[in-house]
Amino acid sequence: MPSENAQHVTLDGNEAAALIAYALSEVIAIYPITPSSTMGEWADEWASQGKKNLWGDVPLVQEMQSEGGVAGAIHGALQAGSLASTFTASQGLLLMIPNMYKIAGELTPTVFHIAARTLATHALSIFGDHSDVMAARGTGWAMLCSANVQEIHDLALVSHMATLRSRIPFVHFFDGFRSSHEVSKIIALDKEIIRNAIDDRWVEEHRSRRLSPENPVLRGTAQNPDVFFQSREACNLYYDACADFVQNSMDTLANLTGRKYQIFEYSGAKDAERIIIVMGSATDTVKETMEVLNGQGEKLGLLQVRLFRPFSVKHFISALPESVKAIAVLDRCKEPGSVGEPLYQDIVNALYEARQNEKYVGKNSHSDVEVNVIGGRYGLSSKEFSPAMAKAVFDELKKDKPKNHFTIGILDDVTHSSLSYDESFITEDPKGVRALFYGLGADGTVSANKSSIKIIGEDTENYAQGYFVYDSKKSGAMTVSHLRFGPNPIRSSYLLQNAHFIACHQSQFLQSFDMLTMLLPGGTFLINCSLPIGEVWKSLPQKVQIQLHSKNAKLFTIDAYAVARECGMGGRINTVMQTCFFAISGVLPSDQALTLIKQSIKKTYGKKGDLIVKQNWEAVDKTLAHLHQVEIPALDDNSGYFEKERINKFGIVDHVIQEIIAGRGDCLPVSVFPVDGTYPTGTAKLEKRNIGFEIPVWDEKICIQCGKCVF
Amino acid sequence: MPSENAQHVTLDGNEAAALIAYALSEVIAIYPITPSSTMGEWADEWASQGKKNLWGDVPLVQEMQSEGGVAGAIHGALQAGSLASTFTASQGLLLMIPNMYKIAGELTPTVFHIAARTLATHALSIFGDHSDVMAARGTGWAMLCSANVQEIHDLALVSHMATLRSRIPFVHFFDGFRSSHEVSKIIALDKEIIRNAIDDRWVEEHRSRRLSPENPVLRGTAQNPDVFFQSREACNLYYDACADFVQNSMDTLANLTGRKYQIFEYSGAKDAERIIIVMGSATDTVKETMEVLNGQGEKLGLLQVRLFRPFSVKHFISALPESVKAIAVLDRCKEPGSVGEPLYQDIVNALYEARQNEKYVGKNSHSDVEVNVIGGRYGLSSKEFSPAMAKAVFDELKKDKPKNHFTIGILDDVTHSSLSYDESFITEDPKGVRALFYGLGADGTVSANKSSIKIIGEDTENYAQGYFVYDSKKSGAMTVSHLRFGPNPIRSSYLLQNAHFIACHQSQFLQSFDMLTMLLPGGTFLINCSLPIGEVWKSLPQKVQIQLHSKNAKLFTIDAYAVARECGMGGRINTVMQTCFFAISGVLPSDQALTLIKQSIKKTYGKKGDLIVKQNWEAVDKTLAHLHQVEIPALDDNSGYFEKERINKFGIVDHVIQEIIAGRGDCLPVSVFPVDGTYPTGTAKLEKRNIGFEIPVWDEKICIQCGKCVF
Repeated sequence: MPSENAQHVTLDGNEAAALIAYALSEVIAIYPITPSSTMGEWADEWASQGKKNLWGDVPLVQEMQSEGGVAGAIHGALQAGSLASTFTASQGLLLMIPNMYKIAGELTPTVFHIAARTLATHALSIFGDHSDVMAARGTGWAMLCSANVQEIHDLALVSHMATLRSRIPFVHFFDGFRSSHEVSKIIALDKEIIRNAIDDRWVEEHRSRRLSPENPVLRGTAQNPDVFFQSREACNLYYDACADFVQNSMDTLANLTGRKYQIFEYSGAKDAERIIIVMGSATDTVKETMEVLNGQGEKLGLLQVRLFRPFSVKHFISALPESVKAIAVLDRCKEPGSVGEPLYQDIVNALYEARQNEKYVGKNSHSDVEVNVIGGRYGLSSKEFSPAMAKAVFDELKKDKPKNHFTIGILDDVTHSSLSYDESFITEDPKGVRALFYGLGADGTVSANKSSIKIIGEDTENYAQGYFVYDSKKSGAMTVSHLRFGPNPIRSSYLLQNAHFIACHQSQFLQSFDMLTMLLPGGTFLINCSLPIGEVWKSLPQKVQIQLHSKNAKLFTIDAYAVARECGMGGRINTVMQTCFFAISGVLPSDQALTLIKQSIKKTYGKKGDLIVKQNWEAVDKTLAHLHQVEIPALDDNSGYFEKERINKFGIVDHVIQEIIAGRGDCLPVSVFPVDGTYPTGTAKLEKRNIGFEIPVWDEKICIQCGKCVF
Repeated sequence: MPSENAQHVTLDGNEAAALIAYALSEVIAIYPITPSSTMGEWADEWASQGKKNLWGDVPLVQEMQSEGGVAGAIHGALQAGSLASTFTASQGLLLMIPNMYKIAGELTPTVFHIAARTLATHALSIFGDHSDVMAARGTGWAMLCSANVQEIHDLALVSHMATLRSRIPFVHFFDGFRSSHEVSKIIALDKEIIRNAIDDRWVEEHRSRRLSPENPVLRGTAQNPDVFFQSREACNLYYDACADFVQNSMDTLANLTGRKYQIFEYSGAKDAERIIIVMGSATDTVKETMEVLNGQGEKLGLLQVRLFRPFSVKHFISALPESVKAIAVLDRCKEPGSVGEPLYQDIVNALYEARQNEKYVGKNSHSDVEVNVIGGRYGLSSKEFSPAMAKAVFDELKKDKPKNHFTIGILDDVTHSSLSYDESFITEDPKGVRALFYGLGADGTVSANKSSIKIIGEDTENYAQGYFVYDSKKSGAMTVSHLRFGPNPIRSSYLLQNAHFIACHQSQFLQSFDMLTMLLPGGTFLINCSLPIGEVWKSLPQKVQIQLHSKNAKLFTIDAYAVARECGMGGRINTVMQTCFFAISGVLPSDQALTLIKQSIKKTYGKKGDLIVKQNWEAVDKTLAHLHQVEIPALDDNSGYFEKERINKFGIVDHVIQEIIAGRGDCLPVSVFPVDGTYPTGTAKLEKRNIGFEIPVWDEKICIQCGKCVF
């Protein structure tokens, strides 16, 4: 029976996974790596606070010298009969591969939770795709993929259940950043549910296999050609049984929570002819797109792959509707030189084997006819995957000769792999409210927005989602916060396509970045600006003025730094800007909002002492006095106060870098990039960010020649 | 034009690869690992001797702290514009994977020569299969596979040519032990050929891309979601072009040597309906089998895969005959949980894409009809793959419902994956001579046999092949030497199926191992035995006596240890046993043989001084006086001098271990093995090897209580 007291929490994907791993582990070895870091950090923090696991013990959380050491420590802990887990990504996962082959070969239950991240090739990337987990697909581990924060929480538990039952170790993975860092309102699995999901007999069986002096056995022998092969085949039954164990665990979870999952989950038209097969966060985007298009009379389908390994052809085929004629398989990785990417190859093979088997048994069904399958790459290194792109893939399947090995989301003007797409195709929920915030890394914008999401998600009936686009320079670079609120559950796993509210926390960004294209007609634009109110309009670039005009927008301004200074908070403007958002966006009644902000401040800063709380409360109160609506006058030809034309004085590659700096990197085609990741040096000069608010002046009298001021 | 002075050399696969890598490298970083060790060791030795590469320089050979360090050192050397190579296998290759992604992403030419070895899973294995190279197939490296010693030598050069031309780094791999340690007579690539094969302009282009302060560039940037994906696709043209570069390099080699290679090489009937697709040493076994069966009227084919990555569907399809109806793809690895093993998946995909393309362009050819494809695993951890097994695979393809995902070479009585095969199917060359030697690790048997192969291979017109089965205990365990000689090139990449000559260098092995089943009727059996001649026959186990009788064999005996002692050589019996072999096997006229042995001794031991040479020469001369033919009397019921019945006092797993010790591990089915590699302890007691010739006696007077004598 579903638990009756379903508790809503607002958290990100990493915390959702770490909560389960922590509850079900005795040993957690960590070596945090982006974007999985906070899973390890949470576990470390909880252990230092004495938080207990399901059995009332505090897990041993140990940071090692590298991910290689983590894998060895986990391998050892498992052999000693402990329940052990870890978290990693990217190169970190690569260092675990040697131990992973052994852990699987010895049929040892464990779960590694992976915030899947790009592997470094021509360039390093801290962002998300599936190239890391795909590099580990030969290790003999089960691989279960979650698409969103709720799934991460639920399937983390399924992974721990299924590994204990099947003895196959599990990689539980989800999209780095897009899912690991998306803050979302979900239903928590409480201790009672976890308790009912885990049968202690499974744990006892694992314990009974431990290496122990009381019952000595030998593991890790060296075998010769005479017996290795036979021994290697001795595990087959365990792999054959694994998919059913995962489905059974999902079914148990459904009984406990009401949330149903399938290892291959089909949704869409029952008589769909065109289907997309995909795993990870893109699933939700495809689903949203498909529902809109099916509403317009199309017959489309989506097959979400959750259990990628062991790949069960039987379950896959039974999930696929017989009507299917054309399939596009989307892979979030690239393996140059292969016939095709991994999921695509699996699907072609699975369909082949289904036809082969049915031919042998004399049946005559859908799989007797060869389905047309194409494969494509998308979303490498967290490249956006939007409904417009999903639609382009569905549309491609209509063609007589759809393009195989396509790319979607870029312009490939070299090998012409890319599909074009119509950016104006938008599927945002009409009942939702969307807000976009441009801040400076470490200026508090992201923290303020996370607080706002928690307020709306936990203190109202609304659902809330936050996704934060960081530059890999982290502190000091631009951050863009994408917030969605609304009465319906939010499964839009892509950046905002338009917004009711846009805030610019750093006015200098307006010179370089186009912020207002996304503003909906009649929407609100808030700018943090130190100029007197009368000069704000004139300071705006002409393009911004035109956009505000044509959209019939409302313009607000605040000198947030002045408020922060007045309240003794230095440059920390997060509370001020958060208050402005609630004051003018109208997502909550103003009084209620102010009360909730103050509660949130108390909760967040309480530990730091009353002064900090008081300063922030004061800032809340003073903000409204400093917040002004700016009348939008007739257009002025002399505008463009700060605007300067940037002239490209450099070569083609410098042009590329300038476009990247200007936030237009997404629009650059393949042809402008070096084939091997080689760039000119000395290009830092192209990036003048103007983010300093004070100009340091050298004071000869107090100089100790430390050199840090760079004079 | 082919070089006119083709020079025959007799060497093993590792030396064949190392010779080319050394000639074409400036930096060689090493961390030797079985079975690739000798490649690194040769390079180290040559460098210390001042041997020069193609350009007259002595390469820098540097041993690192691990294979991870090797990959980093190579990456660095390449970025500095050097020509750099290394050698590795198994876990060593796994540690290189992170750097390999980067080396490929930066389009950097290099060749890693891999003696492919099993990855440790339920047990460690030092032996050969493709699980290591398959674990690296996602890195974006080209992967070229050689099937025998001549190919290793030739395709090593092709790899170095093609990497420089294509900028794609190459894994050049071949079967660990079966190819890396097979000693074979091949035609060497002399300096002139290598010189003509390598265009210095390719080297200059590589140099021009180096990191250098004179022409600074930036490589190894950090990229964000905006541009990473486009940049990743910028390398596509290089991968598209790679297969043609490899084929062109093979064609250039053919012009220089007359030896022709195809990246996908078809052989067999032009109208074959049943085809095996395979790579590595098994290719030659399949080919030999196919030729015998086609000679009996079958219509079979073989498609050898040499270039596994980039996988060129175009070249693959054009190599495949249109008549094909059924294909078996053999993979020398196992990936539990996958739909199928890697090569099988590629073939299914390639055939699918060929049909897809032809459907679109409206053609109607062989690939318009779906070919029946099955995949199977063979040869894990150097498990023998014989002509009988190859025949079983061809036979399976005749069936209406051939078994997919089969295993061949074992008995799988659990999941019933295995095909049965008829061991009596033998394809040995009737013109060849085969000899089998049972020795003790480190007793000189293998060295003596390598010397014999060199004598026959280099001093006569005959071809020669030697393969040595070691136990992973190495020194002190049994070694079995499999030697083939004959007028035809020898491509039998499997153990001897029968022998004209069998020698037992350690008589105690006769009690445990069946040596004589393989002896051909009328063949010769030589035993090294310290008993007086009159007692030799009586000392033989009854089973051996019956075998010698029924085969009408000739029996010779020598007390080799007595001869060695007389000549002051202690326990080193290799020269004595080698002399016996030439004296009684008749492969060469006796006088010629003795002269060649003495020359070989001079060459081998010359550096160690005249005394050693003289002692060995004396041993050669004295051997014949101690070598006696033993008349085979009527069978005697009282025989079995040493024979004792071994009673199984232990449980089932002990039985397994006893069978392994008795050399019958190959016959054990899957069901007797633990599923996770767990064994009881204390089983060393089951192995009583009786290999000591002297019994130590404790002398109280001189004892210093060091404890090493174990009293």
